Amino acid sequence: MPDAFKPLLDAVTYDDRGLVVTIVQDHATNEVLMQAYMNEATLKQTLRTGRMTYWSRSRQEVWVKGATSGRAQHVREVRIDCDGDALLFKVRQEGGAACHTGYESCFHRMLGDGRFIVIGERVFDPDEVYKRLN
Amino acid sequence: MPDAFKPLLDAVTYDDRGLVVTIVQDHATNEVLMQAYMNEATLKQTLRTGRMTYWSRSRQEVWVKGATSGRAQHVREVRIDCDGDALLFKVRQEGGAACHTGYESCFHRMLGDGRFIVIGERVFDPDEVYKRLN
Repeated sequence: MPDAFKPLLDAVTYDDRGLVVTIVQDHATNEVLMQAYMNEATLKQTLRTGRMTYWSRSRQEVWVKGATSGRAQHVREVRIDCDGDALLFKVRQEGGAACHTGYESCFHRMLGDGRFIVIGERVFDPDEVYKRLN
Repeated sequence: MPDAFKPLLDAVTYDDRGLVVTIVQDHATNEVLMQAYMNEATLKQTLRTGRMTYWSRSRQEVWVKGATSGRAQHVREVRIDCDGDALLFKVRQEGGAACHTGYESCFHRMLGDGRFIVIGERVFDPDEVYKRLN
């Protein structure tokens, strides 16, 4: 790995599963788009390629964001928290939506008075997008 | 619990430690201030009191943010992600700093070219604040 990444790689504290919490924010709007996990290998791949790459806990595999959907995330900035167990990436989101449901953000449900209020419009119809792939 | 909170409480998926990832954003600037965890009891306490209350993994105890430092966080909005395993709170941060190091955000270290760039100024001197309490 290039020395440029060393301070970050040295500062990360992985949990007992070898994972670090990763928060993803739109670089232009500061909207929080999603939260996922990286392990050491996918963090290095993300830094090397500039493309957000996670560890999928449900599938137990490397998850290059956008490989299936085309909606890749390109790294603009990376920060780390004070105790090193969480990363904050600012990204450019391709296709205007990070969530597999078609919304810009995975956090599109806001609690109102006894019900959820949906934030934003659907950018794509997930049935259409994922049907084409099956 | 008031029925107003039911949709959120029903939608949360706790991990095998009984915890849910909690992301905290400043309601005015959208700056991500910190990331911590809640369990069911501290989530309910947060919703009931309007004051951010976490489960401290290191101390294994309820952590009412600001109880020691005076820097409380007041809930303005709460969102949940698509699979229910992460919460996003927008808060009003008392005292201008969420981090115990004195910075506004726990994510105050940004990776530059081979070194960390510190984001923002120290709002308080942690030695002074926490010395008074010991």
